[in-house]
Amino acid sequence: MHVRAASYALNSLPGYLQKLLPDSAPVQPESLQAVLQEVETKILPGVTHWQSPNYYAYFPSNGSIAGFLGEMLSAGISIVGFSWITSPAATELEMIVLDWLANLLKLPNDFLSKGPGGGAIQGTASEALLVVLLAARDRILREIGKDALGKLVVYGSDQTHSSLQKACQIAGVHPENLRLQRTESCNEYALSPESLGDAISHDIASGLIPFFLCATVGTTSSTAVDPLLALGKITKRNQIWFHVDAAYAGSACICPEYRHHLNGIEEADSFNMNCHKWFLTNFDCSALWIKDRNTLIQSLSTNPEYLKNKASQGRKVIDYKDWQIPLGRRFRSLKLWMVLRLYGVENLQSYIRNHIKLAQQFEDLVAQDIRFEIVATRTFSLVCFRLLPANKNEEYANKLNRDLLDAVNSSGQIFISHTVLSGKYILRFVVGAPLTEERHIVAAWKLFQEASSSLLENS
Amino acid sequence: MHVRAASYALNSLPGYLQKLLPDSAPVQPESLQAVLQEVETKILPGVTHWQSPNYYAYFPSNGSIAGFLGEMLSAGISIVGFSWITSPAATELEMIVLDWLANLLKLPNDFLSKGPGGGAIQGTASEALLVVLLAARDRILREIGKDALGKLVVYGSDQTHSSLQKACQIAGVHPENLRLQRTESCNEYALSPESLGDAISHDIASGLIPFFLCATVGTTSSTAVDPLLALGKITKRNQIWFHVDAAYAGSACICPEYRHHLNGIEEADSFNMNCHKWFLTNFDCSALWIKDRNTLIQSLSTNPEYLKNKASQGRKVIDYKDWQIPLGRRFRSLKLWMVLRLYGVENLQSYIRNHIKLAQQFEDLVAQDIRFEIVATRTFSLVCFRLLPANKNEEYANKLNRDLLDAVNSSGQIFISHTVLSGKYILRFVVGAPLTEERHIVAAWKLFQEASSSLLENS
Repeated sequence: MHVRAASYALNSLPGYLQKLLPDSAPVQPESLQAVLQEVETKILPGVTHWQSPNYYAYFPSNGSIAGFLGEMLSAGISIVGFSWITSPAATELEMIVLDWLANLLKLPNDFLSKGPGGGAIQGTASEALLVVLLAARDRILREIGKDALGKLVVYGSDQTHSSLQKACQIAGVHPENLRLQRTESCNEYALSPESLGDAISHDIASGLIPFFLCATVGTTSSTAVDPLLALGKITKRNQIWFHVDAAYAGSACICPEYRHHLNGIEEADSFNMNCHKWFLTNFDCSALWIKDRNTLIQSLSTNPEYLKNKASQGRKVIDYKDWQIPLGRRFRSLKLWMVLRLYGVENLQSYIRNHIKLAQQFEDLVAQDIRFEIVATRTFSLVCFRLLPANKNEEYANKLNRDLLDAVNSSGQIFISHTVLSGKYILRFVVGAPLTEERHIVAAWKLFQEASSSLLENS
Repeated sequence: MHVRAASYALNSLPGYLQKLLPDSAPVQPESLQAVLQEVETKILPGVTHWQSPNYYAYFPSNGSIAGFLGEMLSAGISIVGFSWITSPAATELEMIVLDWLANLLKLPNDFLSKGPGGGAIQGTASEALLVVLLAARDRILREIGKDALGKLVVYGSDQTHSSLQKACQIAGVHPENLRLQRTESCNEYALSPESLGDAISHDIASGLIPFFLCATVGTTSSTAVDPLLALGKITKRNQIWFHVDAAYAGSACICPEYRHHLNGIEEADSFNMNCHKWFLTNFDCSALWIKDRNTLIQSLSTNPEYLKNKASQGRKVIDYKDWQIPLGRRFRSLKLWMVLRLYGVENLQSYIRNHIKLAQQFEDLVAQDIRFEIVATRTFSLVCFRLLPANKNEEYANKLNRDLLDAVNSSGQIFISHTVLSGKYILRFVVGAPLTEERHIVAAWKLFQEASSSLLENS
């Protein structure tokens, strides 16, 4: 199967597949050939090609041959590793590779499995965030009583990923107690420690109970980096759980020249990065580390008779079922292990650097065209930009850029997404697909220029 | 790779793998050959072989070639289908195959995607239960105010899966408000409608607010079937959300002769079965249907700018991100589609019937040996039995059966698990691995007999 353009799928209308497939499952078996032919003729035309070199939307979700082989092994062995006993190798390999990755990221020793902490693979950053929010919620409620749930306050910024809001909804944190501090362009959209400190003081004075902060290294809209060290000092002073979400940008921190973005991580209670984003490990593989695994276990464990066994009862083993929302879990460490071994650290670092270099090249191209504006500083491989018409009416500018996004996406040649920063509609161009090369960046830029010329002429 | 015995893993001691692997990821890439060799020599010895024909523990977790091919396709295409736009084919195929499966199970039309309901693939039954509990919680709290959380009461039986307790912990339902009604041997461990009705009346009289019932078709300990029709009438009268968990036994209900176990399903608000248990679809693939998808969406949706798109804003499409805990999701419908098409309905029915027939044969063997007792009626493919010594001291009997489980499992020839019913320690023998044949059942029984003889002689 060739990966061609990014967005054939845009030619699919809602309900297209219903018209192509029968109403019920076949009574008799069909041939593999027939099924594969339908994959080609009916399924693939409705696929948005995340692995295409021309995919620049959202954040990347890397697949690789190493990751694919890991998925094959995992699907072939096909175990369910909820407790150590249900496949010792699955639990142990996961502990080992997350220690390896923690060392690559130079995480503090507190996050390693040999102490009271450790790492676990979650499905997504949303689940990682939810489980630590639950651990933090229950830790404080054990102290102050469960009826105080309505007083608990969670902090983030207006750039924090929406999974924080979702985790709060699930955990029953009252929506009016989620403080998303306003960020500013002049501050590169990072969370301001002053604003956080003020909010906390104000909430305490109002009789509320601050208990959780989610900071971000590499926000979704503009890859802003919150100042971990300063934020961590505030959370420590106020006994607030400090979670760091580096879902996308964590991967870059395996390179010494980007590691400083994690300065202050020693203050955090938990840390997350998605190996399935920019680390060549097929979705899903979200790495979560925590300093005190007992807080997680206290929130999430159950101990029914039918799962009891000597190893668990003897407390000699990790049972990952108590670190996550589901009971069952796949043997996902295999694919991360294969990625780390088949690439090696140096190649993984080069992989990251190459994408950042390509993003820089794209940024240079944008900067050379006076019709465009770079809207936020590029820190990693995301370029935020927009067409800036002579007529500087913001409403018009927003419409123009929406039209530009529609124009390039509906060409079927590339696929990008957008955001809004300080009221401005902005195009996001993220370099991160494994197959993207310089020629793709250059062609994409040409497409933007042509579509812009055409839009400006017709406006 | 051959699947041999079920439980090589039992020879692995905690920490075995740490001793065999290096402390850090390699700087330079290694060869695939080297990695695969380590899979064989270091990983596989620590694997509990769920796919072995001699695996009879917990419930099965079927892998199949069809499911494996589906996983390969999914890993190869490697998209993330959180919104329709991010791969229309992924959302649409999921809607279609869940409609197919709903029709196979003769679920009421309310669960089909053409109305206000529909199906979605969750990772596990735990997640399916959690999302509907959240939908039910938020539906009632929207009416009575969120401060009433502490008054909400959830019902199940002492045989309900522990995921109900876990879902309550996560959702913030107070632990003392989880009513697990006691079941009785004389009632085949099914939830009694009378006991449920009494509990609800008592709670209402105490000023509490009943809002959720989880009934089970095929409980974990003994595959008991709760009487859906009678329970459903009670929940309807009391405006309680009625969820039916058929994680294991749902698969059997595609056979007309077992479909009656779902009688009353028309009263349910939501229904779940795990295609990854006994339906040849590699883990994970848990099918959830709901009558009113808006309740789910109201609980779980977020709508950040960076995910907005015309299709979603136009409300013309399903965005499955709002039906589940995580944001990202794999293209899991592919494997269920391949299983349904490559087997066909008749073969899937034969597959189920064959396992039930084998379980029946095993049950007959047990019944013919007067040293043993069948402890619960066999309804599907689980046989619950125990060695019943002449000396009828229960404590002694329990120890003897614990020793018997240890003896057969540590032989490495089979792998089983246990439960406790009415204070009795009981061996669970579930037939459900795709490769299990009559000869395996016969050999397993011989192993039980020999181990029992040896235990009884030495006692």
